[in-house]
Parts: sequence; C-alpha cells; structure tokens
Amino acid sequence: MDKKPSGSEDEAAIRQVVESWTAAVRRRDFEGILRNHASDIAMFDVPPPFQIRGIEAYRKSWDLFFSWSSDPVPFDITEMSITASADVAFVVATMRCAEPGPDGKQKPLDFRLMMGLRKIEGRWIITHEHHSVPAES
Amino acid sequence: MDKKPSGSEDEAAIRQVVESWTAAVRRRDFEGILRNHASDIAMFDVPPPFQIRGIEAYRKSWDLFFSWSSDPVPFDITEMSITASADVAFVVATMRCAEPGPDGKQKPLDFRLMMGLRKIEGRWIITHEHHSVPAES
Repeated sequence: MDKKPSGSEDEAAIRQVVESWTAAVRRRDFEGILRNHASDIAMFDVPPPFQIRGIEAYRKSWDLFFSWSSDPVPFDITEMSITASADVAFVVATMRCAEPGPDGKQKPLDFRLMMGLRKIEGRWIITHEHHSVPAES
Repeated sequence: MDKKPSGSEDEAAIRQVVESWTAAVRRRDFEGILRNHASDIAMFDVPPPFQIRGIEAYRKSWDLFFSWSSDPVPFDITEMSITASADVAFVVATMRCAEPGPDGKQKPLDFRLMMGLRKIEGRWIITHEHHSVPAES
C-alpha cells in the first residue's frame, strides 16, 4: 500500500515552525526562538564564527544579533520554498533584517537561509541552519 | 507495515552524488558537475549575485570559480553529514577550496555548504545549494 503523500499537511506544519521562529525573533523572545530546535543544532551564521554547535551556542548567537537591532526588530521572509517528505525536510528562503549603517542608523540587510528539519515524535524539529550574505567582491 | 528504514542505502547514494560532484569540480569537468542537478536548481553562492536560478546560470558560476583557481583545483569535503528520508534529503558540509591571495598565490578558503535533494525516478537530484563564508566582521 502506498503511504499517504507527505504533501500539504507537513508543509503547513513546517511553515508554521518557520513563521513562529521569525515572529519570536521580532519580539526578542528566546523561548519562542528555541522552541522547535534540536539540542545539537548546527548553524552556519552570517557573522563569524565559521560554525556554531549546540543549543547554548545557538542561543548566544541571538544576543549578538539583538545587540545590532533597534526595535521593532525586522526579521521577515521575502520568499520561501519548503521541500518535505514524511520525516525529512528542508527550507530555502530569502529574508530581510537590518544592520547598523555607517551613520549608526539601521539599514536593510537581505540574507539567504537554508534550514534542515526532521520529524521527531510527530513534531518538526530544526537540526541545521545556514544563514549568509554574498561575500564582498 | 512499517516502511523500510531509508537509512544507509539512500545515504550511500547521496554520498556518491556529492563526492562525484566534488571530483568533477577538481578536474574542471562541467558535464560531471551538472550530472545530478535539477534544471531549475537554485543556488546561493559565495560571491555575488545574491541568488542564482536555473542550470545555465549555475553552470556559469563555475566559470568564475575556475578563473580564480590554479591546477590542481582544490575542492575538498572536510566534514559532511547527510539526513535522508526515502525521497527528500539534505547535506551539510564544511569544505576547502582556494582563492587568489594578495600576492597572487593561491590561499586556502574554507566554506560552508548545504544541499537539498529529492529522489526523482529513483535518482537523487540536487535542487538547492547554499555556499558561504562568514561575513567580514
């Protein structure tokens, strides 16, 4: 018997995970940011270091981000695609946040995002994140 | 009835796809580089532009890369993890290539990679790539 197509139900659940994460970032809500992350999350972030491992280091990366940001914190999805099976998925998105400009005022910063997720005990969990901007040419 | 664990067979096939891609880059073999890519591949690359779409634009990104590289072209996986279900998978890796240094000599460049893959008609196909280095601090 064919298994049920993973399709729209899993995609909707993953969309909800990603959107609740961005909403938590916008309100500087650490508990909300971390809610659907694996304890051994591995992250490639925009600023150094090269690689971040584990939920504590991941949490700390947001301290740096929030130290750059003025309220209201912009952190918005501009485009997103979700590719999901029944238990493994990845998300590809372009996003917009802000960074301090040379005059100290916030200026928009577009960045690229990939996330890897696994469904564990019925819940979609983020195990990997990759945030970046193109290198300066 | 439980479906067969997706485990080792798919992981081995994906490892083979990634390793044949890196080997093709090292020998500047465009046909080998493109062999397991979707025609609508979307890529976030290390240098600008912000986003690349489609196999022709993806192919051209390698012209720029090869124009930077001296033979033998270094393009090596330093660490890789594969997360696979029966039909969706993602790969997270750290890699090493080279870029021209200020003295014109090649210097090592470590970068971060995520790939998204789908199994289509029994073959693992790369649909998304995200290459980056940390932003300059």
